[in-house]
Amino acid sequence: MKTNLMKTIREQQPIVLNVANHVTPQRVADGINYIGGSPMMMADPLEAADLTKIADAVVLNLGSTNPTAQALMLGAGETANRLHKPVVFDPVAVGATPLRRKRTQQLLERAPVTLIRGNAGEVAALAGVSWDQRGIDAGQGSVDPVTVAQTAAQKCQCIVVLSGPTDIITDGTTVYQVENNAPMLTTNVGMGDVLDGILGVAAGISTDLETITTATGILPVAAELATHQYPDAPFSFLAETYNQLARLDDQTLQQRLKIK
Amino acid sequence: MKTNLMKTIREQQPIVLNVANHVTPQRVADGINYIGGSPMMMADPLEAADLTKIADAVVLNLGSTNPTAQALMLGAGETANRLHKPVVFDPVAVGATPLRRKRTQQLLERAPVTLIRGNAGEVAALAGVSWDQRGIDAGQGSVDPVTVAQTAAQKCQCIVVLSGPTDIITDGTTVYQVENNAPMLTTNVGMGDVLDGILGVAAGISTDLETITTATGILPVAAELATHQYPDAPFSFLAETYNQLARLDDQTLQQRLKIK
Amino acid sequence: MKTNLMKTIREQQPIVLNVANHVTPQRVADGINYIGGSPMMMADPLEAADLTKIADAVVLNLGSTNPTAQALMLGAGETANRLHKPVVFDPVAVGATPLRRKRTQQLLERAPVTLIRGNAGEVAALAGVSWDQRGIDAGQGSVDPVTVAQTAAQKCQCIVVLSGPTDIITDGTTVYQVENNAPMLTTNVGMGDVLDGILGVAAGISTDLETITTATGILPVAAELATHQYPDAPFSFLAETYNQLARLDDQTLQQRLKIK
Repeated sequence: MKTNLMKTIREQQPIVLNVANHVTPQRVADGINYIGGSPMMMADPLEAADLTKIADAVVLNLGSTNPTAQALMLGAGETANRLHKPVVFDPVAVGATPLRRKRTQQLLERAPVTLIRGNAGEVAALAGVSWDQRGIDAGQGSVDPVTVAQTAAQKCQCIVVLSGPTDIITDGTTVYQVENNAPMLTTNVGMGDVLDGILGVAAGISTDLETITTATGILPVAAELATHQYPDAPFSFLAETYNQLARLDDQTLQQRLKIK
Repeated sequence: MKTNLMKTIREQQPIVLNVANHVTPQRVADGINYIGGSPMMMADPLEAADLTKIADAVVLNLGSTNPTAQALMLGAGETANRLHKPVVFDPVAVGATPLRRKRTQQLLERAPVTLIRGNAGEVAALAGVSWDQRGIDAGQGSVDPVTVAQTAAQKCQCIVVLSGPTDIITDGTTVYQVENNAPMLTTNVGMGDVLDGILGVAAGISTDLETITTATGILPVAAELATHQYPDAPFSFLAETYNQLARLDDQTLQQRLKIK
Repeated sequence: MKTNLMKTIREQQPIVLNVANHVTPQRVADGINYIGGSPMMMADPLEAADLTKIADAVVLNLGSTNPTAQALMLGAGETANRLHKPVVFDPVAVGATPLRRKRTQQLLERAPVTLIRGNAGEVAALAGVSWDQRGIDAGQGSVDPVTVAQTAAQKCQCIVVLSGPTDIITDGTTVYQVENNAPMLTTNVGMGDVLDGILGVAAGISTDLETITTATGILPVAAELATHQYPDAPFSFLAETYNQLARLDDQTLQQRLKIK
C-alpha cells in the first residue's frame, strides 16, 4: 500500500477540478479540502479546458446529467486526456435511464477515463451484467461483485472502484478489497461523491493500484472512528467523519486499513 | 392518524423524485433519506418521464424557477398524472414576482398536483387573498390562516399544508392542525423544503388526510426533541433534528403529536 | 466603528438577493439568516429586476460563472444601480481564466459595484498587480496587500475588502484592518462567500466604511469563539461558528474586534 499517502497529499495539495452534481457539491468540496487537496468546481464549458490545465486531476459526476453537464464532462475529459491528467468518473444511476447510458457511452468513447467509481448496480450496468438497481441505490444481483468489477474494468480499460460494505479495487486483473465500512455513510447522501473527490486527490499524486486502494480506505477509516463516538446519530457521525478526515495521519490509516 | 407511518416508510422506502431548488437540495435529500425514503434529484427534462416512472412520488419546488426547472416540473408532473402518482408542490415565493405566478398557473393547469405545501404568504397568493409577504418569509395578513388554506385547497382542488407555528392541513373541507413547532426551524434555510420531502415520502405511501397530517408532524416533533438539547444553538439544533429524524419511531411520534 | 450593527440588522432584517455559485448557496443563505438578515437566491434572469426591487442589497458571486449566471449578475446589478441599491461583488478566481476576467470587466462596466470582496490573488488581479494565484486559493505576491487593495479600490472606484489572515478594508484612501482570524475558516469551503453575504446584510443598512469594517469582523469574531471550543475539529468548529453568529451581540463584537 501507499504508506505515506496522507503526508504526500498535504505536501502536494493536488488541485481537483470537479464536474459535480447539483446536490452534494458543498460536501465534496469540503471533503477534498479537509484531507488537504484543493477543490475547484466549474459550471461553464467555455472554461473547461483552461481550468483543466491548472488541475492535477479531474472528477466527473453523472448525477445531475443535462446538456451543460455533459459538455463540461467532455470538455474537461478531452483536455485531461490530451494533457495526460487522470480522470475519475462516477456513473451515478447509469442503469436508471437510457439517457444516462448514452451519455456515459459518449464520454467513455471521446474521453477515456482513468478510474470509475460506482456502487454495484452502476458498475454492473457498465459491465453489461444484469442487476436489480433501485433508484440511486445499489440494488442486488446474482453475480459475484468481484467479477462484476473486473468485467467493467476490462470493458472500460480503466481502474474500477466498486464501493459497498466491502470496496473492490481492480484494474481488471489484480484485485484488492477494503473491508473498512460504516453503515451510516449511506444514511448521508453524497458520501460516494466524497469518495470520488478523495480518489481524485489521490489520482493527482499517483494512479497505481496501491495508491488508489489506500485512498479508498480514507473515508471508511475516518467513518469507523466517527461511529465509535456517535453510533446512532447519523448527522453527528457525519460531522465527526469530517473532523476525522482533517486529522487522519498515515500511521492511523495504515493501522486501521483492512485490505485483502 | 396514521399510527404506523414510520414503520411503513422504513419497510416500503418510497422513492421520491425531486425537482429541487439550487440552495437546499442536500438538506432535502438527507431529510428524505434519514426518515427512510429514497431521494432522487434530477436536472434534465429529457429524463423527467423515465425517472418519474421509477418514483413513488414527485416533489416540485418553485424556489429556483427558470426555464429548465419549469420544463422539469412539467415533465415530471405530467408523467405523474398519467401514471396516477402523487405530486407535492411548493410554490416558493409565488407572490413575489409575476413570473412565479405565471409558471405556477401553467403547472397547475397542465399537471394538477396532489398536495401544495407553503407558508401563509404563499398559500394566500394561491387563494387570491391579499397578504403582506416579505421576500421568502411568510409575512402577515388579516384573514384567518385556516380560511386561507381552505380557499386555496378548493381553488386548486388538492390538499393544502399551510405551515407555520401551527401547521394547517386541509382538503378544503376537513381541517387538521399540528401544533408541534420549534422556532429555530426558520433560522435554518430550507426546512420547509425538507418538510416537502417528508410529505413526498408519506404521499408515496398514502395521500389520505390522516397520513399527510401525521407526516406533517414528523419534522416539528424531531425539532422539539432537538430544542430540548440545544435551546440556543441553531446549527447544533439542526444537526440534532436530523439525528432525531433518523431515530424517530411511531410510539414517540404518536405520543408527542399535538393535533387538533 | 458601527457600535449598534447587530441590533440594527436584527431590527431591519435586510433582504439580500444573491447570485450565488452552485457549491455554497446553502451555507451563504444560512449565514445571512443566522445574523438576522433575509436571504433570497435566484436562478432566472427574467425575474432579476423584480427580485432586485424588493431587496435591500445584492450580492454577486463569480464562482460558477456561466452565461445564465452572467445574465443574472448583469440584470440584478443594473437594476440595483438604477435604484441606488448597494451591490457586493466577489470575483472568485478572476485571475484563473480569461473568461472570468472578461465577464468581470463586462459587469464592472455595465453595473458598477459598491464593494468588492476577494482574497489577495483575486484583488491583485483586479488591481493589475502580478500575483501567483493557485486554483481558488489566495496564492502569494511580492506587493504589500494594503497597496493591492487600495489600487483595486481606486481602479474600480468602490470599497474593497481584501480578506485573509488580516482583512483590509479600504475605499482607496482610508484603510482599516481587522486582525481577528481563525485558520479553520479556510478549511471549510465557502466561508468567504458567507462573508460576502454578511457584507451584503451590512450594506443593506449602510455602506460607510466603518459599518463595512465592523461587518467584516462578524465572521472572524464568531470563528474565534468557536475555535476556543473546537481547536482541532474543523466541522464542529463550523457548526459552532454558526451557533455563535446567531448569538453574537454588539457588546461581544465590539469587545473582541481588533481593528487598526
